[in-house]
Amino acid sequence: MEYSHRLKFKVRDYECDMQGVVNNGIYQHYLEHARHGLLLSKGISFAELTERGIHLVVVRAELDYRQSLKSNDEFVVCSNVEQFSRLRFVFLQDIFRTADQNLILQAKIIGTSINSHGRPCVAKELAQLFSD
Amino acid sequence: MEYSHRLKFKVRDYECDMQGVVNNGIYQHYLEHARHGLLLSKGISFAELTERGIHLVVVRAELDYRQSLKSNDEFVVCSNVEQFSRLRFVFLQDIFRTADQNLILQAKIIGTSINSHGRPCVAKELAQLFSD
Amino acid sequence: MEYSHRLKFKVRDYECDMQGVVNNGIYQHYLEHARHGLLLSKGISFAELTERGIHLVVVRAELDYRQSLKSNDEFVVCSNVEQFSRLRFVFLQDIFRTADQNLILQAKIIGTSINSHGRPCVAKELAQLFSD
Amino acid sequence: MEYSHRLKFKVRDYECDMQGVVNNGIYQHYLEHARHGLLLSKGISFAELTERGIHLVVVRAELDYRQSLKSNDEFVVCSNVEQFSRLRFVFLQDIFRTADQNLILQAKIIGTSINSHGRPCVAKELAQLFSD
Repeated sequence: MEYSHRLKFKVRDYECDMQGVVNNGIYQHYLEHARHGLLLSKGISFAELTERGIHLVVVRAELDYRQSLKSNDEFVVCSNVEQFSRLRFVFLQDIFRTADQNLILQAKIIGTSINSHGRPCVAKELAQLFSD
Repeated sequence: MEYSHRLKFKVRDYECDMQGVVNNGIYQHYLEHARHGLLLSKGISFAELTERGIHLVVVRAELDYRQSLKSNDEFVVCSNVEQFSRLRFVFLQDIFRTADQNLILQAKIIGTSINSHGRPCVAKELAQLFSD
Repeated sequence: MEYSHRLKFKVRDYECDMQGVVNNGIYQHYLEHARHGLLLSKGISFAELTERGIHLVVVRAELDYRQSLKSNDEFVVCSNVEQFSRLRFVFLQDIFRTADQNLILQAKIIGTSINSHGRPCVAKELAQLFSD
Repeated sequence: MEYSHRLKFKVRDYECDMQGVVNNGIYQHYLEHARHGLLLSKGISFAELTERGIHLVVVRAELDYRQSLKSNDEFVVCSNVEQFSRLRFVFLQDIFRTADQNLILQAKIIGTSINSHGRPCVAKELAQLFSD
C-alpha cells in the first residue's frame, strides 16, 4: 500500500504496563505524533494552528489491535489523510513492527477543525493537505 | 440508561495538552480505569489475572468524541459489559460531565482473554462477569 | 506533622509499568495534581493563571522514593508550601499509603512564576498563598 | 564533558501541557528511556532483568529545570553512570536542546537493585556497567 507519511518509533519501557506490553492507550499517542508529523511534512504546524485559535480535534477513532508491541520493539506508523466530508478529514494509519513487518494496529481517525468560537470550520490552512 | 458501574473522576491538569483540553489519548486511560473498576466490583482483579498469566486485552476500540473536558472538570464514566462472542466481550462506556450532564464521549471496547501461550481463551474467571 | 492540604488518590493500572508498580515518573504527576489542588484551595486556579500569561514552573525537584505503590493502592498526597526566596516558593510533599500509613515518597519541589516575557516575576496572585 | 551515552529525541505534542511546553513530569520519562538505552549499550536489558525478578528502582531523583522544551524541539539526553555505594549506582544526566545547545535539564538519579524478596541486592548482572 502507498502511504504519504511514515514515521519510525521505538517502544520505550515506560510505555509498557504490567502485562509487559505497550498499554492500549499509548497507541493513540503514537498515532497523534505521526499525524502531526504528516501535517508538518505538508507545512502545517499543529502548535502554530493552536496558537492561532484553530483547534484540530478528533471526533471519532477506530482502532483494531492485532498484536502487541514489547520493550525495545521498533515500529513504523504509516499514515494517509483524505477529505471525509466538507468539515471532516480522515487519517488512515497502520502500525507495522520493523523486525517481522507484522501488522500491529490499524486505525481510522476522523477529525475536524474548531475555530475560536468552538464551532467546526473549514480551516483554509488545511487546504494544502488535500491538494495532491 | 442503566449502567452496571459508575466511576467519578476529576480532570488533572497534566492530562490537558496545549489546546487546554484533555488530550484525546487520555480518554482511553479513563476508560481502562473504569473497566478495571467494573471488574473489581464483580470480584475480578486485573492485576491478579495478569500475575496468573491471563491477559485481558483490547482487540478493537471505537471512540466518539462529543465535547472536550477541561481543567478541573468532574465527570463520570458509566460502563456496561456484555458477552460479544464465545471468545470476546464488549464494554459500552459513556462519559458525562458532572456539571451539565453533557455526554462527552461514547466508547465501545471489544476485548478478549489471552492465555500464557498467547492464544485467545475462555477464562473461567470471567464467567461471573456475565452471570448478572 | 501538619499539612495544609491533603488529597486522596487510588493507583490506576495504566500507571503501573512492567515491574507491576507505579512507574517512577508518574509520582510527579500525582505531586503536580496535589499542588494544583492546594492552589485551588487558596483560590488560585493554575489554568486561569496560565491563560493570563502567568506560568508557574518547577525549577528543581527532589524526590526520595521509599516504597512502591501497586495496583489499587489508595494513598494520600500531603502538601505544604512556603516562600523560598523573593522569587521562589517551595512545596514539601509526602505521600502515604492509606492501608498501612507507610511513607512512600518525600518530595521538595521548588517553583517560580514566569511572566509572558519569559522572566521570573513576583506574581501578586500568589500573595494569598503565604498570607497565613 | 564526556558522556558514555547519548540519545536523540524530538518533543511530541502530547507531551506538552496547557502551558505549551513539555510537562515537568515527562522529563523523567525521557531520562528513564535514556538510562535503559545506556544499559542496553552495555548489554543489559531492563525488561529481561525484570522478567528474572531483578528490579532496578530509583531511590532518589534530583532534577534541575533550566529551560523549557517546546513542540518539535529536538534534544539529546547525555548520560553517565557510576557506582555510588556498595548497593547503589548513580546516573548523571544532562539534556541539551539541539538547535542552540542550551542546557535544558540536569539530573542526578540514584538507583538500586531489588531482588524478588524485595531486598536491595548487588546484582552481578550490573557488574559490566562499572567495568570500564
